[in-house]
Amino acid sequence: DTKFDPTEHPHRRYNPLINEWVLVSPHRAKRPWQGQVETLDEDVRPSHDESCFLCAGNTRINGEINENYSDTYVFTNDFAALKQDTPLASSDDPLFKMATEQGESRVICFSPDHSKTLPQLSQQAIINIVNTWQTQCEELGKTYNWVQVFENKGSMMGCSNPHPHGQIWAQQQLPTLVNKKHQAQKDYYNKYGTNLLQDYAIKEVAKQERVVVQNADWVVVVPYWAAWPFETLLLPRFSVTRMTDLSESQKASLADIIKKITIKYDNLFNSSFPYSMGWHGAPFDGEGHPQWTLHASFFPPLLRSATVRKFMVGYEMMAEAQRDLTAEQAAQRLRDLPNVHYKDNQ
Amino acid sequence: DTKFDPTEHPHRRYNPLINEWVLVSPHRAKRPWQGQVETLDEDVRPSHDESCFLCAGNTRINGEINENYSDTYVFTNDFAALKQDTPLASSDDPLFKMATEQGESRVICFSPDHSKTLPQLSQQAIINIVNTWQTQCEELGKTYNWVQVFENKGSMMGCSNPHPHGQIWAQQQLPTLVNKKHQAQKDYYNKYGTNLLQDYAIKEVAKQERVVVQNADWVVVVPYWAAWPFETLLLPRFSVTRMTDLSESQKASLADIIKKITIKYDNLFNSSFPYSMGWHGAPFDGEGHPQWTLHASFFPPLLRSATVRKFMVGYEMMAEAQRDLTAEQAAQRLRDLPNVHYKDNQ
Ligand SMILES: O=P(O)(O)O[C@H]1O[C@H](CO)[C@@H](O)[C@H](O)[C@H]1O
Ligand SMILES: O=P(O)(O)O[C@H]1O[C@H](CO)[C@@H](O)[C@H](O)[C@H]1O
Repeated sequence: DTKFDPTEHPHRRYNPLINEWVLVSPHRAKRPWQGQVETLDEDVRPSHDESCFLCAGNTRINGEINENYSDTYVFTNDFAALKQDTPLASSDDPLFKMATEQGESRVICFSPDHSKTLPQLSQQAIINIVNTWQTQCEELGKTYNWVQVFENKGSMMGCSNPHPHGQIWAQQQLPTLVNKKHQAQKDYYNKYGTNLLQDYAIKEVAKQERVVVQNADWVVVVPYWAAWPFETLLLPRFSVTRMTDLSESQKASLADIIKKITIKYDNLFNSSFPYSMGWHGAPFDGEGHPQWTLHASFFPPLLRSATVRKFMVGYEMMAEAQRDLTAEQAAQRLRDLPNVHYKDNQ
Repeated sequence: DTKFDPTEHPHRRYNPLINEWVLVSPHRAKRPWQGQVETLDEDVRPSHDESCFLCAGNTRINGEINENYSDTYVFTNDFAALKQDTPLASSDDPLFKMATEQGESRVICFSPDHSKTLPQLSQQAIINIVNTWQTQCEELGKTYNWVQVFENKGSMMGCSNPHPHGQIWAQQQLPTLVNKKHQAQKDYYNKYGTNLLQDYAIKEVAKQERVVVQNADWVVVVPYWAAWPFETLLLPRFSVTRMTDLSESQKASLADIIKKITIKYDNLFNSSFPYSMGWHGAPFDGEGHPQWTLHASFFPPLLRSATVRKFMVGYEMMAEAQRDLTAEQAAQRLRDLPNVHYKDNQ
């Protein structure tokens, strides 16, 4: 009789936040890679680029001129996926069900410095970003039920401009993934009387097995159910449902931990680490939602090196997400990396 | 008062097969693309490549020698994600839930001809592939509840070898996506007393709005709820729950329609069109499952050209799939393409 060894034996882990499973095949990490290799972006960029649509003072594609901003800068996406004035329409046919959506898409420049990415910005510059996320949520949350704050970093993640920036999409209806988390946290709360992600954060901090970095207010873990190789979950160690409820000191400690995790990411393969990151908290529907915990996820595509990614295709698209190393192995690798950015060491 | 125009106004469509929504932002197709451009694979390949692990008679990475096969050839994946002998283990902790999985992963070479892809194979060669899918499902279905037949085509889809091939993964538990379809078809059947996908196929054939190609037995549509730009759904026009139930003539007409849709795909951008495709039917659990309809999906990544893909990142990873053209627009473009492969025209 062999004993189960998570680093050897294929197994499935359950993601209680979205009620989905992931297949873990840790022995698979040994296979050689002969497939697609990504191009490494090693351009050294100027602090201001005349041809960049996001740099201060430059003219955008639609003819508008960016302000001469000095910390963050928010404007409406020139090719917004959501519009304020969409007419109402819907159909309840079970096979052809639809509903129009009203909303807004905005771009948020993180810094006027074209040459920098998030981990290279100062603590104060990151606090400015968090402040902007907060004021945007406050403003858009007055009109819309859902405000999605996110960042696509790196061309591998569909980001079409290296200038440090993120996006904010606001809309009336809860998006699919958000609705799953809404339901799952509610079900857990109804069943156990406690908050799913608060319970989880406490257990992970106690175990330390999957913790990558922590400070007094926040903790970053590779979640037990991570799908992407180096996926992480950023959790508060205090009770908070929305971005709009963060205090000044909680925003400062948030900036600290964001800098730490993104530095570790860049240090993993000594390159600017691509990812999509985003925030989820309770909807802005005027209700309390004690079941909700504000949190952020980082979904990075890289697996083996700065140029070899994990492909979520085939089995993953048809059946289930699949990973080639355990969450614990990924956490250990990230945890062991230096806290100083590799470029500041050269 | 503006009237709702699906080609102008952002709206959400519902996928009844998996109970998820997709955001359609058709006006967004107009935005210019300044992001990542993929490399075009224009290599002309020999019919037999000495260095290919899948060619007949060659030695694989683990030292085994491929048979001198003349139509299809199946062997166990040298780096299988699933293993037969995994010890049983599980945990029911709501936050750390897991279960080991037993299964097998196999590779199926579609043809000994290294230089060809699916649309370039003869009708008879495609019938051979369908026969192999069927016998594999028969064999593996005796031991496993689930047999996932799929193909990753093109390096953009993580395919590490251009030799025409697919994969078959078999396992005990129903994968996440399959389980969603299992539930959704059951719920529909219980509610309406009819079969979801049979009802849907009949309506789509009557409407002809989203039909790409059809024959007496099968129809290919861009489903109303498609997420990927040129995603298609291949449906039977007769009642069938599993691959193992297809008759000789139904397999021949299936080969015909597979050749037609994959030729259209290659003709869209005059290049070998990348995709992941896969089959879903009732589980092999010995039950009848009248709610299930056997079907295949094609998920292709390309959006604008042979080198510009759709990135499912950021909003899509955090919130909901989003598309930039309507299903009807995509269907029309595919429908209008010639039925002769562009390479046979040169
Ligand atoms: O087994 P392959 O073809 O080497 O690998 C490919 O297909 C697998 C199954 O869809 C995926 O898990 C891998 O990420 C992908 O690269
Ligand atoms: O808006 P961008 O940055 O041009 O576009 C990028 O982010 C969007 C939102 O995540 C995605 O829908 C696009 O596919 C991606 O290329």
